[in-house]
Amino acid sequence: MATSANVQVLGAWSSPFSNRVQLALKLKCIEHEFVEEAFYINKSERLVKANPVYQKIPVLIHDEKPVCESLLIVEYIDETWAGNGRSILPSDPYERAIARFWAGYIDDKWFPRMKELATAAGDETKATVVGQLFEGFALLEEAFVKCSKGKAFFGGDDIGYLDIALGCFLGWVKVAELLGGVKLLDQSRIPGLAGWAERFLSHDVANDIIPDAPRLVEFYGKVQAAIAAAAKTAAD
Amino acid sequence: MATSANVQVLGAWSSPFSNRVQLALKLKCIEHEFVEEAFYINKSERLVKANPVYQKIPVLIHDEKPVCESLLIVEYIDETWAGNGRSILPSDPYERAIARFWAGYIDDKWFPRMKELATAAGDETKATVVGQLFEGFALLEEAFVKCSKGKAFFGGDDIGYLDIALGCFLGWVKVAELLGGVKLLDQSRIPGLAGWAERFLSHDVANDIIPDAPRLVEFYGKVQAAIAAAAKTAAD
Repeated sequence: MATSANVQVLGAWSSPFSNRVQLALKLKCIEHEFVEEAFYINKSERLVKANPVYQKIPVLIHDEKPVCESLLIVEYIDETWAGNGRSILPSDPYERAIARFWAGYIDDKWFPRMKELATAAGDETKATVVGQLFEGFALLEEAFVKCSKGKAFFGGDDIGYLDIALGCFLGWVKVAELLGGVKLLDQSRIPGLAGWAERFLSHDVANDIIPDAPRLVEFYGKVQAAIAAAAKTAAD
Repeated sequence: MATSANVQVLGAWSSPFSNRVQLALKLKCIEHEFVEEAFYINKSERLVKANPVYQKIPVLIHDEKPVCESLLIVEYIDETWAGNGRSILPSDPYERAIARFWAGYIDDKWFPRMKELATAAGDETKATVVGQLFEGFALLEEAFVKCSKGKAFFGGDDIGYLDIALGCFLGWVKVAELLGGVKLLDQSRIPGLAGWAERFLSHDVANDIIPDAPRLVEFYGKVQAAIAAAAKTAAD
C-alpha cells in the first residue's frame, strides 16, 4: 500500500482533470497528499519543475517521480497498483482501445465545445455551440450503450476508465446548465447518459470528489473577477 | 499468428500515421492486407463506416472490428499480440507513462508546428515557426537522452513505441528540410536525435515503410495540384 508520504497530487479541487486523478487514487485505495495549486493566478515552482513542458495541473508525484497528463496518470495508477481492487481499464485489448478512443474524443472534441459554451457571445453563436454539444452528447450516448452493455456504468457494474474520463466533468456540466440556461443531460435526448450521470454522482467514489455546482459557480465568479482585476492592473 | 484475412489496414503509404500502424505490425510479424485510401480526394464508404467519428486513416480492422487513432492502434497491436517478439511499449509503468507523454507531445505540439512550416508565408513567419520547431526538437533530444539511456533507440536496444511515434515522420522531416531550405535534424544542435534518425531509417523494420523524401516531394506536388484543381472546379 502506498502511503501519503510517497504519493502527492499537484492539483485543484475545481479542476476536472485533477478530479480524474483523485477518482483513480480513491478507486485503488491509495493514500496521498493533495497539494492545492492556485493554477489560475500563478504556478508554483514545484509545478513548473514537475511539468516543465506544459506547466499545468494535475501532476502525480510518486516516489519523487512526476507523471503528467490526467488520462496518462489514470493509466499509470491502474498499472502501478494493479493488485488493488478491480482494474480501471477494461482487461480486453479491444475494449481498452475503445475506452481510450472515447476518452480522447472527450478531451479533444467534446470538452473544447463545453469551454466554448462559457464564452459564446450572442444567441446565434450560443445556439450553434449548443447544437454541437448535443451532437457530442449523442455520440457519447451511443458509446455508453455499447460500453456499458446494459449495466450501470461505462465500466460495467462499477466505475471504470471512461466513467472517470467523462464523470469528472459532471459538476461543470451542471454549472453550464445553470449559467447557460440549457438542459444538457436531457433524459429525453440521452436517457442512458442522464441516468448514468445520476448514478455516477451518487457513487461513493465520486460524491466527495466531484464538486457541487453551487460551489463551482461561486468559484467561477471569483476566477472571472481575479482575471478582470489582473487585466485592469496590466492596463493601468 | 494473424493472417492477412483477418487483419486489414485502411491507410495511405504517404501518411506517417498509417506508417505507425505498418511499423507496429511489422515489429510483431503480423501479416495484413494494406488497403490504400486516396484520403485527400475522397473517403471510401468503408473508411466512413469504420471511423464514423473522425472519418480518417489509419484504421486497423481486426476480425471485422475497427480500431482508430494511430497511437491507440499501436497499443492495441502490442497488447493483442503480446506473445510475438518483444513489447513495443516499455514494461515498466513509469517508463510507459513517459513514452505516452512524449508521443502525445509529438502529436499535439510538435507535429502542428511541422504542418505550419509547410504553409508559413513570409520570412518572418517562417523564422518564428522554425524557432518553435527547434525548441520542440530540443525537448525531444532531452527525451531521447533520458529514454534511450545511452542505447540506440528510444526503446533501448531496439525500436519501441516512441521510435514508432516520432520515426514515422522522418520522411516528411526530410521533405521539410528540402522544401524549406532548413536543416532540422542538425547534428550540432541535436546530436542524439540526428544519430537516432539515421539508425531508425536504416533499420530493417523502417526501411521499406518510411517513404523516401523524393517520392514524398513528388506526391506533395500532386496533392497540391489536385487541391488547386478541386478549388478551381468549385469556383467555376
